[in-house]
Amino acid sequence: MWFRQLFDRESSTYTYLIGDDVTRDAALIDPVREQIDRDLQLVDQLGLTLRYVLDTHVHADHVTATGPIADRTGARIVGGHRAGTCVDLPVRHGDVVSLGRLRLRVLETPGHTDDSVSYVAGDRVFTGDALLIRGCGRTDFQNGDAATLYHSITGVLYDLPASTLVYPAHDYKGHAVSTIGEEKRFNARVAGRSRDEFVALMDGLGLPRPKLIDVAVPANRACGR
Amino acid sequence: MWFRQLFDRESSTYTYLIGDDVTRDAALIDPVREQIDRDLQLVDQLGLTLRYVLDTHVHADHVTATGPIADRTGARIVGGHRAGTCVDLPVRHGDVVSLGRLRLRVLETPGHTDDSVSYVAGDRVFTGDALLIRGCGRTDFQNGDAATLYHSITGVLYDLPASTLVYPAHDYKGHAVSTIGEEKRFNARVAGRSRDEFVALMDGLGLPRPKLIDVAVPANRACGR
Repeated sequence: MWFRQLFDRESSTYTYLIGDDVTRDAALIDPVREQIDRDLQLVDQLGLTLRYVLDTHVHADHVTATGPIADRTGARIVGGHRAGTCVDLPVRHGDVVSLGRLRLRVLETPGHTDDSVSYVAGDRVFTGDALLIRGCGRTDFQNGDAATLYHSITGVLYDLPASTLVYPAHDYKGHAVSTIGEEKRFNARVAGRSRDEFVALMDGLGLPRPKLIDVAVPANRACGR
Repeated sequence: MWFRQLFDRESSTYTYLIGDDVTRDAALIDPVREQIDRDLQLVDQLGLTLRYVLDTHVHADHVTATGPIADRTGARIVGGHRAGTCVDLPVRHGDVVSLGRLRLRVLETPGHTDDSVSYVAGDRVFTGDALLIRGCGRTDFQNGDAATLYHSITGVLYDLPASTLVYPAHDYKGHAVSTIGEEKRFNARVAGRSRDEFVALMDGLGLPRPKLIDVAVPANRACGR
């Protein structure tokens, strides 16, 4: 399996390149508009063929590259079935996206947004903003809902094996990866909290409005085109 | 094997935490002073015992955390034999640092600085600033020498298997890892260039003086204490 983690410093977004090392079919998860040339150069240098571009959700903090990359490469756009009409392949819980011999299994993990999905590939899970390293996405805009997110984390993602590697869409402290087992023990927002305690915590965060939300959400509902 | 890549955004430095997953003996490579609490918290959460803190070289762009971490944990400081008298275990080409059942093999890879070493652990090599992803460290200060670096890259690091994963001390474009095979083909400074062409390129870069060099180099010669 090909696997690369890429970082956009401006939005602190992680993009992932994964592929089958035999068939060389590949996909990009959560690509960022400003990094299109970097990402497609890497795909080209590694001799991969891009089959899919996937978003974990309609982002509010950066503009997705899925549309422009699909237009340039012929890759198909994958996203949750609530993400918008620009998605070529709207996916639901339990759906599988095949990439050569690789299987990307879809878990619906709403709460940060209502369209949020995670993708499981082997011993890795790409959690978007549902589960971050020692944290989670906020729940105060875009149909976010703290109780729903609590279920997505503790009732869906925490059902994965403890050794599953957690690759989130963002990190702000320089961490690159975690595991489900670690998050169960150490997640600063979820560990040791009941659903009601989590909801109270999330509802009281008082975070500032994302700088790019008014640009990013409409753009991302059109897959960044 | 435990393995974590950590990033310091201010200096674009990668720090690596590696350890034996049975004995739980661990080491930090190129820790950054501003990230001591983050890094030691992770060591603690993972239940690891820090045996060594290693620098790949005397850095000019950030202050190392090796001294303070050694003082707090009892870990021993490892560095190239030209790095300075604060190093507990000065290492030379071919030396092996044991970490439980893990073996860190030392390669002397001077040229960016005269004390630069790389550490090989299994299929990974931690190259410091000798070999960066698609690039290399500059050679215009601290006893740097372009011809020497050319040999370290093409005559030492390129002798590793092509599939060896290259983990550098820095990246400025959001890449996290490469391979020796990729760098042979795509390194923007080295690929396709003779030694003389590389020396001419490096001597003509005209880079600005690092902002922190007057603070960092004396501090790092004292292991950041």
